[in-house]
Amino acid sequence: MSTIPGFWAVIPAGGAGTRLWPLSRENFPKFLLDLTGDGRSLLQATIDRLQPLSDGRMLVVTGAAHRAKVLAQLPDFEPADVIGEPARRESMAAIGLAAALVERRDPDAIIGSFAADQLIDDDEAFQRTVREAVRVAATGKLVTIGIEPTGASTAYGYIRCGEPIPGTAAHDVQQFVEKPTAEVAAEYLATGGYRWNAGMFVVRASLLLDLLERWHPELARGLRQIAARPETLEEVFPTLEKVAIDIAVAEPAADAGLVAVVPGSFGWDDIGDFASLAAVTPHKDNAPVLLGKAEAVHSLDATGLVFAAKDGGKTYAVVGIENVVVVDTGDALLITTIERAQDVKKMVDQLKGGGLNHLL
Amino acid sequence: MSTIPGFWAVIPAGGAGTRLWPLSRENFPKFLLDLTGDGRSLLQATIDRLQPLSDGRMLVVTGAAHRAKVLAQLPDFEPADVIGEPARRESMAAIGLAAALVERRDPDAIIGSFAADQLIDDDEAFQRTVREAVRVAATGKLVTIGIEPTGASTAYGYIRCGEPIPGTAAHDVQQFVEKPTAEVAAEYLATGGYRWNAGMFVVRASLLLDLLERWHPELARGLRQIAARPETLEEVFPTLEKVAIDIAVAEPAADAGLVAVVPGSFGWDDIGDFASLAAVTPHKDNAPVLLGKAEAVHSLDATGLVFAAKDGGKTYAVVGIENVVVVDTGDALLITTIERAQDVKKMVDQLKGGGLNHLL
Repeated sequence: MSTIPGFWAVIPAGGAGTRLWPLSRENFPKFLLDLTGDGRSLLQATIDRLQPLSDGRMLVVTGAAHRAKVLAQLPDFEPADVIGEPARRESMAAIGLAAALVERRDPDAIIGSFAADQLIDDDEAFQRTVREAVRVAATGKLVTIGIEPTGASTAYGYIRCGEPIPGTAAHDVQQFVEKPTAEVAAEYLATGGYRWNAGMFVVRASLLLDLLERWHPELARGLRQIAARPETLEEVFPTLEKVAIDIAVAEPAADAGLVAVVPGSFGWDDIGDFASLAAVTPHKDNAPVLLGKAEAVHSLDATGLVFAAKDGGKTYAVVGIENVVVVDTGDALLITTIERAQDVKKMVDQLKGGGLNHLL
Repeated sequence: MSTIPGFWAVIPAGGAGTRLWPLSRENFPKFLLDLTGDGRSLLQATIDRLQPLSDGRMLVVTGAAHRAKVLAQLPDFEPADVIGEPARRESMAAIGLAAALVERRDPDAIIGSFAADQLIDDDEAFQRTVREAVRVAATGKLVTIGIEPTGASTAYGYIRCGEPIPGTAAHDVQQFVEKPTAEVAAEYLATGGYRWNAGMFVVRASLLLDLLERWHPELARGLRQIAARPETLEEVFPTLEKVAIDIAVAEPAADAGLVAVVPGSFGWDDIGDFASLAAVTPHKDNAPVLLGKAEAVHSLDATGLVFAAKDGGKTYAVVGIENVVVVDTGDALLITTIERAQDVKKMVDQLKGGGLNHLL
């Protein structure tokens, strides 16, 4: 497999992963975790997947508080290639800053932006898809990768596909649509013309910034100013507009007929909660998913997910519960169910209200 | 309140409490535990309840392996008053040995035998009942205390009451009946003439042994021989017949018209499992029973029981589970439900099969 000349990978590493507490913490968020137990964090797996395409041309954009932890996980990275945001300004500022920095190094570069906290089950299919997306982006399109839906999910936004683009695997994008109701999601699935929006964008860096200039000129200018004079990052970045890349650029560009979607047929999951983590992790039927120190867990008539603390000498015994979620990190123990996995966020809020911020 | 002259309390301290694992362990069984968190073990609470009646005339009979732990919990006891059985020979040998030892100290003594692992919610009502039972026992009856049923339990044996005994609160006992089916238990409750058999016996020590002599002469002689020459305990006790006091004496004595039942209207529970422990422990509606380090437990839409490890610095978060049972002892964590509380025994068997005897 050859690398893609002029291709830069941009990896926004943000997102608290609150519903994965107590694994995910404010000061050690989801993307730093080895959730699947294969020895690589989600961030590292993302880098591993992109390295064959970009040959080291990669920028990670993360919160300043996490920059040292990111560098510790990525020993081959130049420190300059891990950008610490001095304030949270949403995805447009994060990806736009990376685009502006890449544009200065190579005005013709094509960037591909892929969040650091997602799971992909087939790296080769992913790489083929990115390669095709870069080919389409070179024609002057903002390209997104649309994941083939495996169900009528209400957790993701959808992409409505338009006409095929001759000579490519891509279609025009008619519209980005918000997370639907279950009913609407079922309709989307039935028509076959919709794909999940995984927030993956492949685009010439200069085009992204020029499009941004069209709809959010101050933000575009601020980003290009920081790229020209990196010493102004601390001063300028916190003043930038807070806006998501979908709203700032992708949706208006789709309306203007400038967006293409390349189909991604690899398995993809953003592992938003423990239900999602349980679903993507291989396990025996009629037994819980075992993560962490799996050999410490004994179960009888139980299913769900058990994450056993790696350091403790504790033995876990689970008896007669369907879809239970048990997560032990030593300092905290969460017990819930697959069905209530979304409500972990409420518990985190409750703990915050109780002054237990050191655990969050 | 005055003590009862010539009354000796006998406290058999046995029973593994397997269904209360991991709180209850083979080498630290249920009767040594402070299950309710009031600062006294079940054994200590039993002694506390009997002390006002017996003024120190008490014998504890326990496994030799537990004798030192029992003495450590009962600093006011003479070592000679805690008898260590060199082998398990069931309840007749345990209670009979205590009866034989008491008989030698006071041939007219009346003993009351009360297991060390039961919970009673009204000590004064219990003491009034025992006082009445001793009064009836002095007339030459084997007296049992029959607990007023609070439901159609299938977990206990029942006592079928006969005619009232004039001048007392007692009735004759027609029959001891085994643990019934739910249907039969409901019939018992409907007739009103049945009481729970709590295994409490009040009887002149010499009468108990004389009755035993009638049906199990070798066992009676062996017990009296040990009492006469305590140095033969190690040699003789392991050769004694293994038989429960109900079968050896209480049932045949009932057939012979020699048994009376005094009604006990105090709350009583043998805390056989975590469902039982949850039921007897005060707690808020719509919140789990909290035991151990209660302040470490946070819950949201949860009921059941959480026992938080006392020593650990762990925070517990329980989200959206009804009737969950979570028991953390530091080295072991049990997660099950109130409904499956009986199956903890199966898990203990599974762990034993897996060679985890050090946890049992």
